[in-house]
Amino acid sequence: MNRSQLVGEMKKRVFEANLLLPKVGLVKLTWGNVSEINREIGAIVIKPSGVPYAEMKVEDMVVTNLEGDVVEGTMKPSSDLATHVELYKAFSKIQSVVHTHSKNAVMWAQAGRAIPAYGTTHADTFYGEVPCTRQLTNEEVEKAYEKETGKVIIETFAENKLDPLATPGVLVYGHGPFTWGETPQKAVENGIVLDEIADMASMTEVINENCQSIPDYLLDKHYFRKHGATAYYGQK
Amino acid sequence: MNRSQLVGEMKKRVFEANLLLPKVGLVKLTWGNVSEINREIGAIVIKPSGVPYAEMKVEDMVVTNLEGDVVEGTMKPSSDLATHVELYKAFSKIQSVVHTHSKNAVMWAQAGRAIPAYGTTHADTFYGEVPCTRQLTNEEVEKAYEKETGKVIIETFAENKLDPLATPGVLVYGHGPFTWGETPQKAVENGIVLDEIADMASMTEVINENCQSIPDYLLDKHYFRKHGATAYYGQK
Amino acid sequence: MNRSQLVGEMKKRVFEANLLLPKVGLVKLTWGNVSEINREIGAIVIKPSGVPYAEMKVEDMVVTNLEGDVVEGTMKPSSDLATHVELYKAFSKIQSVVHTHSKNAVMWAQAGRAIPAYGTTHADTFYGEVPCTRQLTNEEVEKAYEKETGKVIIETFAENKLDPLATPGVLVYGHGPFTWGETPQKAVENGIVLDEIADMASMTEVINENCQSIPDYLLDKHYFRKHGATAYYGQK
Amino acid sequence: MNRSQLVGEMKKRVFEANLLLPKVGLVKLTWGNVSEINREIGAIVIKPSGVPYAEMKVEDMVVTNLEGDVVEGTMKPSSDLATHVELYKAFSKIQSVVHTHSKNAVMWAQAGRAIPAYGTTHADTFYGEVPCTRQLTNEEVEKAYEKETGKVIIETFAENKLDPLATPGVLVYGHGPFTWGETPQKAVENGIVLDEIADMASMTEVINENCQSIPDYLLDKHYFRKHGATAYYGQK
Repeated sequence: MNRSQLVGEMKKRVFEANLLLPKVGLVKLTWGNVSEINREIGAIVIKPSGVPYAEMKVEDMVVTNLEGDVVEGTMKPSSDLATHVELYKAFSKIQSVVHTHSKNAVMWAQAGRAIPAYGTTHADTFYGEVPCTRQLTNEEVEKAYEKETGKVIIETFAENKLDPLATPGVLVYGHGPFTWGETPQKAVENGIVLDEIADMASMTEVINENCQSIPDYLLDKHYFRKHGATAYYGQK
Repeated sequence: MNRSQLVGEMKKRVFEANLLLPKVGLVKLTWGNVSEINREIGAIVIKPSGVPYAEMKVEDMVVTNLEGDVVEGTMKPSSDLATHVELYKAFSKIQSVVHTHSKNAVMWAQAGRAIPAYGTTHADTFYGEVPCTRQLTNEEVEKAYEKETGKVIIETFAENKLDPLATPGVLVYGHGPFTWGETPQKAVENGIVLDEIADMASMTEVINENCQSIPDYLLDKHYFRKHGATAYYGQK
Repeated sequence: MNRSQLVGEMKKRVFEANLLLPKVGLVKLTWGNVSEINREIGAIVIKPSGVPYAEMKVEDMVVTNLEGDVVEGTMKPSSDLATHVELYKAFSKIQSVVHTHSKNAVMWAQAGRAIPAYGTTHADTFYGEVPCTRQLTNEEVEKAYEKETGKVIIETFAENKLDPLATPGVLVYGHGPFTWGETPQKAVENGIVLDEIADMASMTEVINENCQSIPDYLLDKHYFRKHGATAYYGQK
Repeated sequence: MNRSQLVGEMKKRVFEANLLLPKVGLVKLTWGNVSEINREIGAIVIKPSGVPYAEMKVEDMVVTNLEGDVVEGTMKPSSDLATHVELYKAFSKIQSVVHTHSKNAVMWAQAGRAIPAYGTTHADTFYGEVPCTRQLTNEEVEKAYEKETGKVIIETFAENKLDPLATPGVLVYGHGPFTWGETPQKAVENGIVLDEIADMASMTEVINENCQSIPDYLLDKHYFRKHGATAYYGQK
């Protein structure tokens, strides 16, 4: 396929993944955005800013270069674009980023806590706790808020020596979740999982205030059942 | 458009906004009402009292003057009309008022607490905490309950020096939420946001009993990303 | 109408009210039943026992006399029939009884607590707290469980000097809610309200552990806005 | 019917029961599986591993012998097959096993607690608390994880002297629920009940931290209303 065809396919995938967000209950009103990158052709496709999902069309998807400068489309891109761009630069193996204000993940982000790996539902997707960034400083917020949001995520992964493929999501303190994946569909699925395990984790603590994270050997077992060379879940 | 056409348009908007309430899950049975005002033609349009949503027709919408006296329609207006009238008198820049018993907002109203601004989902719509009124006195309830409900909201905004455009909603102690906006659609959306952030806030406190409101600079950033001359969210 | 026609109308109303239960989310599987009484013709119509809602037909409704003896129909009546019969005998002004295992009401029944009147949503339907019965004794359970369930409800109302019209529902300790009303539709609506206020009340206590019931004058105001000679809510 | 016809019927029932899981809200994405056994013809039918529910066809169901070796079908069976096989070997009277990650049951599994019998909704299906297994050891997880998951369930039932027909489900510590029954439909229904009573139980404890299990005589009454020779619920 030529560049135009590839971008056309990206637009379709990004459009459909955006529509999936309200359908699966991760997004109310216009609170969410999905993007996809193709590094070889130098293109990012992202949802336009603040357009109601019911009115959005596939041709409204905005195309930018790898720096986030709009190169195609008449609409403004999602205001969170700069965060996506930073993540694509730092995490070279991810092809799609999703941001939502999904309720349960936001609760943990507002609480400023990483989500412990309390069970195998968590371990099937996230290899260890889902981290929460530090609060952004006044200077960071005023200078370049969305870009700095990306940077604090990257800082969190660097400091905790996390692999973004093994931990495909994060909580931004006081804000909400970002997830990512190899495709828009997969990045949305990781957002579904993140919200579900956030919900499970908060009530787990209510049911047993002394609850413990699962042991490392069970975390390993479940994560590697589904990921990597030794995976045996699914049809591949 | 002449007065009759303008009122006809108002009726349609108010009718559709009322139907939106049960559809988005803010209202069960007949627990909610939406109104719209046009100060220039001296008209308020509001839902009739206690009519099931499934049976309600656009022509059932009741038209009153700016004092709340019915001038058109055979049905009784919502019993909360007097509250709407007070809010329209005091808050001259709002064009629509919505009242519901949406679950999560009611929980905070019953708890008698303002909702702290724990995150950006809150700050995107409410510039600071969502206030909760004091309890009405016996005299106020017996004298003119619905009118006094409006007055205690106005008192709460005056005492806390709040701008009703920057804080488009309130909790009435022991009762429930009122929200408002420039259009019925927008006032309902503010009701959706209020219920969602109420839900998020209560579990935020369960997850971290020492959780903190977001810093003012982040509140400013998110609120002014979407509102005022420096807004850059959306397509305008 | 003759007796046959009246019973036919009762069957339709009872059938439709039973179908409403899963539709509004009060019932899973076969956990619920609705009945209606016509004391003049000496007939009670009730749902058959354990029939899946999807397969149930209007002609499956069971007709009994005022003692609960089946007089028409080939199916067994709901196993809770004896509870309904006791309530109809003691509460002479109610025409329909509904029993469900609706989640939030059951939580309070299992906790063994009456639901305090924390707000106007509660006061619009229940004039004061929703009572919870004592635990049944071993003897009562073994002797005539369903009949004794009715008796302990009646005992609870007598001891607390409650009017079943002003308190159209109850929690049976360790079991779940019964509600009633003038029609099957109204009894189901009271079940909807009871479950909703149960949900609101539990989180109200989580949000503010020192929350208070609303003052009597507000309880009076809201209850009598909707009920009795001075009611002004609705179109009558 | 001959073997081929019997297996064909099993495939249909297993397929339909699997589709029921997301429909009733017990399963997100591909997190669940249902199987059925016919010991006489030596066949187990189970869902294929990791296939999206929307794409799954009845002919994708995998057939194995009683040891779990695939004998028919081109797809890999659910990775949890070995757990099902162990349960079928030890619990000779069950014909179907269901595994999900339903939210409320998982919360208790993650909390590592058995669910107390707080009410009759629980007692109608589970004759006593729903047990939770111990944590699997490192050796067990590494040796034969899914088989050992079955074994720890069996160990839990043996140690607590539980009858799998009277306690048709279990929580695996840090993982989630397994339920079973005489048919796939019944095993799914037991999964619905388990998730519902898990939800009820956690909030029961929030509403009353000193809540008590129902007395044995009430547990007996409700369980034997629906089960065994003295049952009188339903139409049989």
